[in-house]
Amino acid sequence: MDSSAYIAMTSIVIAGITTGFGTMGPALAEGRAVATALTSLAQQPDASATITRTLFVGLAMIESTAIYCFVVSMILIFANPFWNYFVAQAAGK
Amino acid sequence: MDSSAYIAMTSIVIAGITTGFGTMGPALAEGRAVATALTSLAQQPDASATITRTLFVGLAMIESTAIYCFVVSMILIFANPFWNYFVAQAAGK
Amino acid sequence: MDSSAYIAMTSIVIAGITTGFGTMGPALAEGRAVATALTSLAQQPDASATITRTLFVGLAMIESTAIYCFVVSMILIFANPFWNYFVAQAAGK
Amino acid sequence: MDSSAYIAMTSIVIAGITTGFGTMGPALAEGRAVATALTSLAQQPDASATITRTLFVGLAMIESTAIYCFVVSMILIFANPFWNYFVAQAAGK
Amino acid sequence: MDSSAYIAMTSIVIAGITTGFGTMGPALAEGRAVATALTSLAQQPDASATITRTLFVGLAMIESTAIYCFVVSMILIFANPFWNYFVAQAAGK
Amino acid sequence: MDSSAYIAMTSIVIAGITTGFGTMGPALAEGRAVATALTSLAQQPDASATITRTLFVGLAMIESTAIYCFVVSMILIFANPFWNYFVAQAAGK
Amino acid sequence: MDSSAYIAMTSIVIAGITTGFGTMGPALAEGRAVATALTSLAQQPDASATITRTLFVGLAMIESTAIYCFVVSMILIFANPFWNYFVAQAAGK
Amino acid sequence: MDSSAYIAMTSIVIAGITTGFGTMGPALAEGRAVATALTSLAQQPDASATITRTLFVGLAMIESTAIYCFVVSMILIFANPFWNYFVAQAAGK
Amino acid sequence: MDSSAYIAMTSIVIAGITTGFGTMGPALAEGRAVATALTSLAQQPDASATITRTLFVGLAMIESTAIYCFVVSMILIFANPFWNYFVAQAAGK
Amino acid sequence: MDSSAYIAMTSIVIAGITTGFGTMGPALAEGRAVATALTSLAQQPDASATITRTLFVGLAMIESTAIYCFVVSMILIFANPFWNYFVAQAAGK
Amino acid sequence: MDSSAYIAMTSIVIAGITTGFGTMGPALAEGRAVATALTSLAQQPDASATITRTLFVGLAMIESTAIYCFVVSMILIFANPFWNYFVAQAAGK
Amino acid sequence: MDSSAYIAMTSIVIAGITTGFGTMGPALAEGRAVATALTSLAQQPDASATITRTLFVGLAMIESTAIYCFVVSMILIFANPFWNYFVAQAAGK
Amino acid sequence: MDSSAYIAMTSIVIAGITTGFGTMGPALAEGRAVATALTSLAQQPDASATITRTLFVGLAMIESTAIYCFVVSMILIFANPFWNYFVAQAAGK
Amino acid sequence: MDSSAYIAMTSIVIAGITTGFGTMGPALAEGRAVATALTSLAQQPDASATITRTLFVGLAMIESTAIYCFVVSMILIFANPFWNYFVAQAAGK
Repeated sequence: MDSSAYIAMTSIVIAGITTGFGTMGPALAEGRAVATALTSLAQQPDASATITRTLFVGLAMIESTAIYCFVVSMILIFANPFWNYFVAQAAGK
Repeated sequence: MDSSAYIAMTSIVIAGITTGFGTMGPALAEGRAVATALTSLAQQPDASATITRTLFVGLAMIESTAIYCFVVSMILIFANPFWNYFVAQAAGK
Repeated sequence: MDSSAYIAMTSIVIAGITTGFGTMGPALAEGRAVATALTSLAQQPDASATITRTLFVGLAMIESTAIYCFVVSMILIFANPFWNYFVAQAAGK
Repeated sequence: MDSSAYIAMTSIVIAGITTGFGTMGPALAEGRAVATALTSLAQQPDASATITRTLFVGLAMIESTAIYCFVVSMILIFANPFWNYFVAQAAGK
Repeated sequence: MDSSAYIAMTSIVIAGITTGFGTMGPALAEGRAVATALTSLAQQPDASATITRTLFVGLAMIESTAIYCFVVSMILIFANPFWNYFVAQAAGK
Repeated sequence: MDSSAYIAMTSIVIAGITTGFGTMGPALAEGRAVATALTSLAQQPDASATITRTLFVGLAMIESTAIYCFVVSMILIFANPFWNYFVAQAAGK
Repeated sequence: MDSSAYIAMTSIVIAGITTGFGTMGPALAEGRAVATALTSLAQQPDASATITRTLFVGLAMIESTAIYCFVVSMILIFANPFWNYFVAQAAGK
Repeated sequence: MDSSAYIAMTSIVIAGITTGFGTMGPALAEGRAVATALTSLAQQPDASATITRTLFVGLAMIESTAIYCFVVSMILIFANPFWNYFVAQAAGK
Repeated sequence: MDSSAYIAMTSIVIAGITTGFGTMGPALAEGRAVATALTSLAQQPDASATITRTLFVGLAMIESTAIYCFVVSMILIFANPFWNYFVAQAAGK
Repeated sequence: MDSSAYIAMTSIVIAGITTGFGTMGPALAEGRAVATALTSLAQQPDASATITRTLFVGLAMIESTAIYCFVVSMILIFANPFWNYFVAQAAGK
Repeated sequence: MDSSAYIAMTSIVIAGITTGFGTMGPALAEGRAVATALTSLAQQPDASATITRTLFVGLAMIESTAIYCFVVSMILIFANPFWNYFVAQAAGK
Repeated sequence: MDSSAYIAMTSIVIAGITTGFGTMGPALAEGRAVATALTSLAQQPDASATITRTLFVGLAMIESTAIYCFVVSMILIFANPFWNYFVAQAAGK
Repeated sequence: MDSSAYIAMTSIVIAGITTGFGTMGPALAEGRAVATALTSLAQQPDASATITRTLFVGLAMIESTAIYCFVVSMILIFANPFWNYFVAQAAGK
Repeated sequence: MDSSAYIAMTSIVIAGITTGFGTMGPALAEGRAVATALTSLAQQPDASATITRTLFVGLAMIESTAIYCFVVSMILIFANPFWNYFVAQAAGK
């Protein structure tokens, strides 16, 4: 087993874990935000425009942290500089 | 045991873990959002249109994090660049 | 012990864990949603149609994350591309 | 120790863990749902028909996740494709 | 130490763990259900028939998950197909 | 060290753990049920007959899960089929 | 080191752990039951007879799980069938 | 290092752990019971006789689980049958 | 396997973990802030300007901690001084 | 390294852990009892004699569990029968 | 693999962990502070000047702990005295 | 490495852990007691003499458990009988 | 790898962990203090001078524990007596 | 690697951990005390003298546990008797 296999395995493991665990926090946070929005809407239906707008801005910011994780996973699977280095090295060997 | 076996094992493990654990957060978050929606509906039946609409937008955003996990799992099982590389290498050997 | 045995063991382990742990989140979330539905029904019996409908849509979305896990388990047991590859390799050897 | 022993051990371990831990979530969720149903019944005895019906639908959906786990355990013990493969291989050896 | 010893040890371990941990969830869930039933009875003694009936149906469903665990343990101790296979193999050796 | 020693050790370990941890859940659940019964009695002394009867039925069902654990422990110590097999084997050797 | 030493060590470890951890649950549960009894007495001094009687029945049932643990520990230290077997074997050697 | 040293080490470890961890539960439970007693006294000073009596019975029962742990520790340090066996064996060697 | 492979693997692992876990805290914190903002808006719609402004300043500060994590991950993947050192060393060898 | 060194190390480790962790429970329990006493005093200053007396009895019982731990630690450091045995053995060697 | 590789790996690991985990506490604390500020603003809009000023001072102090972590990470990556020592040693070798 | 080094290392580790973790419980308990004292003072300023006196007695008892830990640490560092034994043995060697 | 490398690695690890984890407690505590200050300001704007002064004294004391951690980290990186000893030893070798 | 290196490493590790984790409890406890003080001040501004004085006495006692930890760390780094022994031994060698 040469180095590239280890790099590949590590990349697979981390790509999965980063997405699998990193989306847990945002999911829970979004669930909380949505839940409170619904409570607020039921309590003050007149302010639904402001509430909905604030909710969507908030969801976008929370989603951004989930996207950081997904981006890191995709970089590790499809644009991994370490993997490219070792594949190039193996090809040039 | 050659490299491809290790890659295969790692991919299986991570595909399962990413989906198995990564859907926990979204599931709980959706449960919370649905629960609050029901409370809100009971409290303010007149606002049911707004509440239901906001709920579905929220569920869609939460579900998106579960889908990130499922996508990573499917990529690892059916479109794994590292696996393809090693299978090609083994075939060309 | 050749590679296919390792692949088989890994698949068994992950198939069990994915289903065993991955259904925990949805189960708890559904319990929460059902519990709130019952509270809401007791509080506002007149809105039972809306509440029940929203509950079923919500349960369906939560159940979907449990089904992702079950699907991954079934793929790993009955349609595992890595296992097929190694069995084919062993047969052709 | 040959491969089939490892497969057997792994199957036993995972069959037990999947059922042992996977039924924890559903059990707790059902306890919660039943508890809320009782509270609701005490609060609004007139709605007992709707509450009971909704409870049973909910319990059925939660129980379904416990059954996924039990099914995976039974498949691993009595209809394990990996085990059949290795037993067949051992028999034909 | 031959294979059958490992199978025996694994079966013992898993039989104990499945029952020991798998009954924790149902026990807690039943405790919750019973506790709420008592609260409800104190609050609404007139509805005691409905409450008791619903409680017993609920306890039966929760108990079912504990019984899944106990069944798996008993299968592993007294009707273990893997153990039978290896004992037969050892006898025929 | 021969196989029977390993079997003995494993049986001891699991017998202790199954009882030691498996009685934790029932104990806590019974504590909860008893606590609520006392609260209910203080709140509604007139319904003491119904409350006490329901409490005892509930305690019996919860205790049953503790007894499953104790039964598994006793089977492992005094009626262990795997141990009997290896002792018989050692005697006949 | 022969087998009996391992058996002795395992028995010591498990005897301690079973009692040490297994009494945690009952202790907490009894604390809860006693605490609620006191609250109930303060709230409804007239029902002190019923409350005290129910409390003692409950404490007895909870204590029973602690006693299961203590019994298993004592069996492992003073009436351990596996230990007797190996001591007899060592004596007859 | 002979067997008796291992037995000694194991006994020390378990004696400490059994007391160190096993007294945690009773301590917390007693804290809870005492705390509730004080609240009850403040709320209903007239019932101080009943409350104090019930408190002391309860504390005695909780303390009993702590004493089980302490007894096991003392048995392991000063009356350990396994240790006596190996010391006798070493002396007779 | 030479040093650079180890450095590469370590960098991949830490890049994933830093982003995957480090975004959990900010996500939850933002969810909480957004949730409270919605509650406040429902309670006091007139102060929506001040609330929204304070919310955005707060979100920016919380997001900054998520960005620290993302920056560290990106430095480790694309501007890693240790990696550059070992690649230069390998090239000059 | 001879046996006495292992015994010494084990004794040090367990002496520290038993006191370090075993005083955690009593400390928290005493904090709770004291806190409730203060609340009760503020609520019912007239009952301060009864409250203070009950508090001190309770603190003494909780402190007793901390003292069990401290006693075990001191026995292990200054009156350890296993250590004496091995030192005597080493001296007589 | 020489010493500098180990130092490099350790530095990478710790740089990531310090930032990844160390920012979790500040993030949650800031989320809590911001959330309370919003509640307070909604409750007392007239005191918005004082509230906002106190909030910003508080956020600055909490952020300072996050910056301690980030500083340690940056020191470990870009100004690591241990790394410099070993690189100098390797160069002078 | 001779025995005394192991004893030294073990003593250092345990001295640190006993103090580091053992002061956690008392610190939290004191925080709770002080917090309740302040609440009580605000609620009933007239009883400040009794409250303060009870608080100080309580703090002294809680602090005693922290001091047990500190004493064990100091004994292990400066008056360790095992260390003295091995140093004497090494000196006399 | 000589001793100084191990010392360097250990120092890096502990410097990071001490700051990374040790600032978690203070951060959360400051968040709590700031949050309560804001609530108090909203509730009693007239007492803002006393509240703000008490808050700053409290924050300073909490921050002091974070600074203890940071100081230990900086000592370990820049003024480590053990490191100096081994570097001096290596230089004088 | 000789003994002194191990002693040095152990001292570094424990010095960091004792301070890093041991200050967590006091920090949280102080946060709680300060938070309650602020609430009490807002509720009863007239008692600010008593409250502030009690708060400072309490903070001093809590801080004392943090200082125990810091003292142990400083003893381990700058006045470690075990380290001095081994350095003296190495010098005299």
